[in-house]
Amino acid sequence: MNEVGAADPLTDVEDRDTAENAVETAAPDSLHDEDDRLKPEFVTAVLDAVEEGHNEEARELVSPLHPADIADLLELTPSEQRGEVAAALGDLVGAEVLSELNDYVRDDLIDALAPEQIAEFAGELDTDDAVAIIEDMDSEDQQAVLDALAPEDRAAIESALSYPEESAGRLMQRDLIAVPEHMSVGQVIDYLRDNSDLTSDFWEIFVVDEAHKPIGTCQLSWVLTCPRGIAISDLMKREQTLIPVDMDQEEVALRFQKYALISAAVVDGSGRLVGMITVDDILHIVQEEAGEDVLRLSGAGDGDINQPILMTVRTRLSWLIVNLGTAIFAASVVGFFQETIAKYVVLAVLMPIVSGMGGNAGTQTMAVAVRALATNQLTSSNTRRNILREFRIALANGSVLGCLIGVAVGLIYQNHDLGIVIAMAMLFNNLVAGLAGILVPLTLEKAGVDPAVSSAVFVTTLTDVMGFFSFLGLATLWGL
Amino acid sequence: MNEVGAADPLTDVEDRDTAENAVETAAPDSLHDEDDRLKPEFVTAVLDAVEEGHNEEARELVSPLHPADIADLLELTPSEQRGEVAAALGDLVGAEVLSELNDYVRDDLIDALAPEQIAEFAGELDTDDAVAIIEDMDSEDQQAVLDALAPEDRAAIESALSYPEESAGRLMQRDLIAVPEHMSVGQVIDYLRDNSDLTSDFWEIFVVDEAHKPIGTCQLSWVLTCPRGIAISDLMKREQTLIPVDMDQEEVALRFQKYALISAAVVDGSGRLVGMITVDDILHIVQEEAGEDVLRLSGAGDGDINQPILMTVRTRLSWLIVNLGTAIFAASVVGFFQETIAKYVVLAVLMPIVSGMGGNAGTQTMAVAVRALATNQLTSSNTRRNILREFRIALANGSVLGCLIGVAVGLIYQNHDLGIVIAMAMLFNNLVAGLAGILVPLTLEKAGVDPAVSSAVFVTTLTDVMGFFSFLGLATLWGL
Repeated sequence: MNEVGAADPLTDVEDRDTAENAVETAAPDSLHDEDDRLKPEFVTAVLDAVEEGHNEEARELVSPLHPADIADLLELTPSEQRGEVAAALGDLVGAEVLSELNDYVRDDLIDALAPEQIAEFAGELDTDDAVAIIEDMDSEDQQAVLDALAPEDRAAIESALSYPEESAGRLMQRDLIAVPEHMSVGQVIDYLRDNSDLTSDFWEIFVVDEAHKPIGTCQLSWVLTCPRGIAISDLMKREQTLIPVDMDQEEVALRFQKYALISAAVVDGSGRLVGMITVDDILHIVQEEAGEDVLRLSGAGDGDINQPILMTVRTRLSWLIVNLGTAIFAASVVGFFQETIAKYVVLAVLMPIVSGMGGNAGTQTMAVAVRALATNQLTSSNTRRNILREFRIALANGSVLGCLIGVAVGLIYQNHDLGIVIAMAMLFNNLVAGLAGILVPLTLEKAGVDPAVSSAVFVTTLTDVMGFFSFLGLATLWGL
Repeated sequence: MNEVGAADPLTDVEDRDTAENAVETAAPDSLHDEDDRLKPEFVTAVLDAVEEGHNEEARELVSPLHPADIADLLELTPSEQRGEVAAALGDLVGAEVLSELNDYVRDDLIDALAPEQIAEFAGELDTDDAVAIIEDMDSEDQQAVLDALAPEDRAAIESALSYPEESAGRLMQRDLIAVPEHMSVGQVIDYLRDNSDLTSDFWEIFVVDEAHKPIGTCQLSWVLTCPRGIAISDLMKREQTLIPVDMDQEEVALRFQKYALISAAVVDGSGRLVGMITVDDILHIVQEEAGEDVLRLSGAGDGDINQPILMTVRTRLSWLIVNLGTAIFAASVVGFFQETIAKYVVLAVLMPIVSGMGGNAGTQTMAVAVRALATNQLTSSNTRRNILREFRIALANGSVLGCLIGVAVGLIYQNHDLGIVIAMAMLFNNLVAGLAGILVPLTLEKAGVDPAVSSAVFVTTLTDVMGFFSFLGLATLWGL
């Protein structure tokens, strides 16, 4: 019956005009700005309505929003008003909104809810989303919620909680479609149509053997485009990426990227299918893991603007105190050269240039190395080549920078010796920076320490100390 | 016919053991290490085989690999051997491998290929992957490849190239399934079965009106689980996220995350469906965009370890030269206080502590602000609150750090006045750091400049200058 006239999937694109209107379509309301963020006027309107006790008005404003937008709204609400706003919005703040919320904001709101209410929300969600809500509660509250859950939900969530945090077992959902290999396409379709209690959110069908081990995967589009008589085992793809249930989520995300997966089977120790991970959960992880490098390198912890301020102060302060220690250590190097400085104060003026430029160059190399390690691009097969590469880059940059500062200083202070000393120190410290920038992250990675967390303190201490030492030491030797 | 015994989708997970075996299953070979990276022994074996002219042996080694792994292998091959290895592997380096390759590595290889060969590869790929290969070629080569393409492929690729780089128009593929709203589920299935020339890679069906404007989206799982008689318009979801064809890819990625999309319809200026973007292409973008903040903040450009070394030197050096300028500027502030330093050299020893700690604190705040801006968490609705938040954090950190360094310096140098001066300077510079760390990125974002690219130079210049100025200035005023 093809003559019903299916629309042509290939559209002609000759006479397209500007996409102005389309932007409108994408956000067909006056609530969002061009970047799909809620407009401040809208947020203020809702907060004002709640403040003045017009809860009905607030609900009316909010009701057209997508749950992800309601979550955004609550995140944009000052923390002291959040409970009140959530209460005013009532059942608009449902399970889905809760699962979209930032962890800290959710903790705020959950504290105010009864365990039965949380259990009700958890029951509505996929296992992975329910786990995300429950896993951060303290154990007493967690138990109260678990007790209030329906038995099968409780079993699924308890089992997920038994896996380590940030592992595949926490990410996966248990509702999936698995069929035996002897089925035909038609039988699979009938099975799906006849069993209304099956999940309706799936993108691939897993084919399993008698021991419930996955032997192949079948995209739904293949099932839909094939005649009913075809055997599912002839249709499925046999190469599959199986995720061990205890695999770290960062590894899981790398597999999804590398093999362009939409969903993947999760297997237990004996290779049996126990769950499924879908790509929409992976997007968040990729975003988080890739973004957290910059926060960790800078010592800002998880850098969440919704974190309670005392926790933020503690995280950042402990990093700053470590840095204070290394700064005092670097300063003590300067202390050795007080006599030289006293004779020639210009050295004190110039020394921060040498140390600072080393820090800048080291940070460049370190950022590249940390990212290359995180994305599996820097492996033992190309380590030596990349160390050499960084050395050559440092040699080139150090030479240019050394010449520039040497000539400038020589001219300004009319002192060739001073120019030569600072040029040599600059080159030397750039080499230190380039080598430390790659060797420190590599060594930390080998030692099993996250290079993003600890590299910066080592690299900048090295470039500070060696910057002061090389410049002031050379100046002393040179008899400046 | 449900009695054929569909396997139970919910598996019991009571008796799972360790996931050791499962890791085996996930990488069922001896070619990968536990992180799914090719083992160095394997890479060496392939390179050695090629070097010794045993191309057949090299091909045998490589043939079990997934295209993504063959791409990894070529990336791990030193650039001077890459052409030789690719030639030895012959048709194992096909269209899919090419589309998985790092841009720089691909450019290397493509230079050696005839336009007809590239056109053949492009013809095998989805539009978006073909465009990714062709878009970076210089216009003459590009034209040669386009001329060698089949007419319909050429039209699709030329049209994609007419959109700006990194826009939805470049990312989308044209092969998609669109059906009119009056169809039933059964009619859709028959249409898909009867038209063998349709794409078989799709996850959702788009429902369009007579003007070919999307009016709803239907997950394949819904189609499969429903009786044939249901109207597709009753099944589809009407709220949909439409992507304007000229939307920037970073924005597209944020929509996919926010609304947990698997695929999305791309519409032209008049709202008509012109293509589809799928989530597997978005994963790469999220990874890139989130990861590049750390590289940009550090001035490492795109930080690709496969970039030709001269290009890397140029990128990093230009950033370092800008920093050299600001370092000289900061040093000139020290220059004003030479007399004070000459009288009391200890000031030279201590001054880098004040400026350096300001830099550290500023970098923390800046990293948080840049990430919060990139993920749409910091918006005009909560800007003022977050500036205040950073001020309070800086006040707390600055007070603690000021006390620590003040007491330490007072005791070490037995000089209370010196302790008080450095404590005050430390607090002051922390406040400068906290405010600059958030105000600089906000201002740049407002001005339409990527805050990740340019924030660092402003913030560290400010903390250097104000660190020197506050400490040495106070010391002078205090008469130290």
